[in-house]
Amino acid sequence: MRAEAIAAGAALAARDLAHAPTAQKDAALAGLADGIRSRRRRLLAANARDIATARKAGVRGALLDRLALDDRRVEAMAEAVEAVAALPDPVGEVVASWRRPNGLEVRQQRLPLGVILMVYEARPNVTSDAAALCLKSGNAAILRGGSEAARANAVLADLVASALENVGLPARSVQVVDDPSRELLAELLTQDRFIDLCIPRGGQGLMRFVRERARVPVVPHAEGVCHVYVDGGADVGRAVPVIVNAKAQRPGVCNAAECLLVHRTIARELLPRAGRALLEAGVELRACPTSLAILGRASVKAVAATEADYGREFLAKILAIRVVRDLEQALEHIARHGTGHTEAILTRDLASARRFTREVRASAVMVNASTRFNDGGELGLGAEIGISTGRLHAYGPMGLRELCAKKFVVEGDGHVRE
Amino acid sequence: MRAEAIAAGAALAARDLAHAPTAQKDAALAGLADGIRSRRRRLLAANARDIATARKAGVRGALLDRLALDDRRVEAMAEAVEAVAALPDPVGEVVASWRRPNGLEVRQQRLPLGVILMVYEARPNVTSDAAALCLKSGNAAILRGGSEAARANAVLADLVASALENVGLPARSVQVVDDPSRELLAELLTQDRFIDLCIPRGGQGLMRFVRERARVPVVPHAEGVCHVYVDGGADVGRAVPVIVNAKAQRPGVCNAAECLLVHRTIARELLPRAGRALLEAGVELRACPTSLAILGRASVKAVAATEADYGREFLAKILAIRVVRDLEQALEHIARHGTGHTEAILTRDLASARRFTREVRASAVMVNASTRFNDGGELGLGAEIGISTGRLHAYGPMGLRELCAKKFVVEGDGHVRE
Repeated sequence: MRAEAIAAGAALAARDLAHAPTAQKDAALAGLADGIRSRRRRLLAANARDIATARKAGVRGALLDRLALDDRRVEAMAEAVEAVAALPDPVGEVVASWRRPNGLEVRQQRLPLGVILMVYEARPNVTSDAAALCLKSGNAAILRGGSEAARANAVLADLVASALENVGLPARSVQVVDDPSRELLAELLTQDRFIDLCIPRGGQGLMRFVRERARVPVVPHAEGVCHVYVDGGADVGRAVPVIVNAKAQRPGVCNAAECLLVHRTIARELLPRAGRALLEAGVELRACPTSLAILGRASVKAVAATEADYGREFLAKILAIRVVRDLEQALEHIARHGTGHTEAILTRDLASARRFTREVRASAVMVNASTRFNDGGELGLGAEIGISTGRLHAYGPMGLRELCAKKFVVEGDGHVRE
Repeated sequence: MRAEAIAAGAALAARDLAHAPTAQKDAALAGLADGIRSRRRRLLAANARDIATARKAGVRGALLDRLALDDRRVEAMAEAVEAVAALPDPVGEVVASWRRPNGLEVRQQRLPLGVILMVYEARPNVTSDAAALCLKSGNAAILRGGSEAARANAVLADLVASALENVGLPARSVQVVDDPSRELLAELLTQDRFIDLCIPRGGQGLMRFVRERARVPVVPHAEGVCHVYVDGGADVGRAVPVIVNAKAQRPGVCNAAECLLVHRTIARELLPRAGRALLEAGVELRACPTSLAILGRASVKAVAATEADYGREFLAKILAIRVVRDLEQALEHIARHGTGHTEAILTRDLASARRFTREVRASAVMVNASTRFNDGGELGLGAEIGISTGRLHAYGPMGLRELCAKKFVVEGDGHVRE
């Protein structure tokens, strides 16, 4: 019942929001950014209590890091909301248009999807980011964050509600769900009369739960098991910094690399240099027998990888390494262990680059660039609500445009079909 | 078990098919077209037995018409397959590309979705159309037609299998399911490890079944309750042929109009003329009290509409009529009774046209044109697999491009993220 009331309320708000003027939506976002800044202390205090609870519950490492706010992160949240306000309104954008031989004028034009249910875990900034992106794209949002961030999310909920009310938009345009139970989530996932899209961002458990229960359409944002493959004739001097960046620049995120694949002909030259650089960056190496021997001979510290280390998202400074016979074997390894998120090849060979980009099925395929570039901002899409690992509707970073649908508008002069 | 074998087989075939050269796919399609022509008699004999069985089971009207093949329709099936072969291959198409300030080259490029499960009812031509569109777009297809067309579909299954084998493509690239039971369908709908998209085309019962059972992503192709709204100052002489065309040119299809909404200021002028033209075209009129009185005074035969006549897909030469107070009330009627398929406004007023196209949520919004133009061929997309009534991924006619996903390909010179 609760879920139906939330979903039906969102659907009602969505009808108004779909035609809200850009200036009104932008004013709400400006109000939200102001609110975040002026209520910084309240937000930090709530976050401190969230963290204390999480610590007691045994939460550690990457999850705790993602949960934590400080002055800098709160300011970044406000700035992110302002950045979304500054982006062009996607609603009404004409994507393509053409004239038919019979004189009909056809155009495809963006409209909001309707109601978006966002399911995520600990990061409080996802609450303000998702609220801003949904609002700007004319969608009503139901934001269901993790229990770890419940208190900070409650503060944000108040800020969003005030910002909406102050500009005369329906308060239920953005609903922050204060009950993080799986029961309510399960019920929300069946509200297909009212909810147009569910975006789950999280670990395997959450994704499975959503997949099994959802009757609403889902665009999954699953984990990233990303590989960097170093081809036979690669430029070793250029390859090493890319490998270190892909793994160590921010190991707790989904576009960080988890596994290094090295062509056998370059392994002896590459591995000792890459290994040393990775160790300096604090990375633990888990190597296949061949790479372990090469690293050992060069006195680079590594441990033997187990089969379970391949296809695993460490979310930490740990890298699996495997020497492969050729590009073919690298492609097989990626097809088997990759999650369709981000895959990179480092090569000087045109044929290898062409084959890799053609055959690898991933939301982003990098050639001589770090996996870390698979990001809405870095790719030039503006802010993103997440990175879709499903191929339907959107694949890769989802920005404002990907939160919209496209309809046909056709103009004639009394045209009839023969 | 049976469903899993079908789905896993398709997924295996999809891996080969994704990289199959265009010429090979086109050769398979040419072979299929040839097969349809050379086995015309076998196809017609099988269809005759399907029809006899359907008649015995009490099938009548539009459904029986859609099931029936004749020489002309078989030739049209072969030509449709050839038309798909002649379209450009969507796989590998660069949709957009740009350069980032740091020199990274970004492009978005099409790839097949993977495995498509097509669920449909009586028309045998959907089997050959869907096979052709999936194959050309590099997707493996599982085609589950209605039991009414089982014998014709079995003949087509053989033709498709031979065409694939003759050019060396995996036979399981296109599987025509010979068991039309709901049990097998229910199992197929849970094969989310292997199936990337389900396209259901059919009536409410089938759509509900798919929605309730599917764990695979679904792009619904639901029924069309399409309206034609005649605005206050419309050109009556031009409006009448459009109304007749929208209703009567082919009443058994989803983009035919089911309801005429007329602004009260033009009702007296329009309705008698439109009514006579519709009667001449054999259309039964079901009118609201106001329109019934106007038609009656002009001696145009009509019956009183019941509330159930609004929002109903007649699939027959029956038209509901309602006089509305203004554009606002027309928009409300459409929001309440429309199915998001196709809606049309006939007007001379720019403001009315702008508001209608902005506010109506439908896959195609027509201005001074018949609803019958919401069709892949008519809109210039080439052949279509159907008309999506869901906003996610594709909205409106789905052609080859809509059977693809887009991935990012990013090229750098050893770029790392700061």
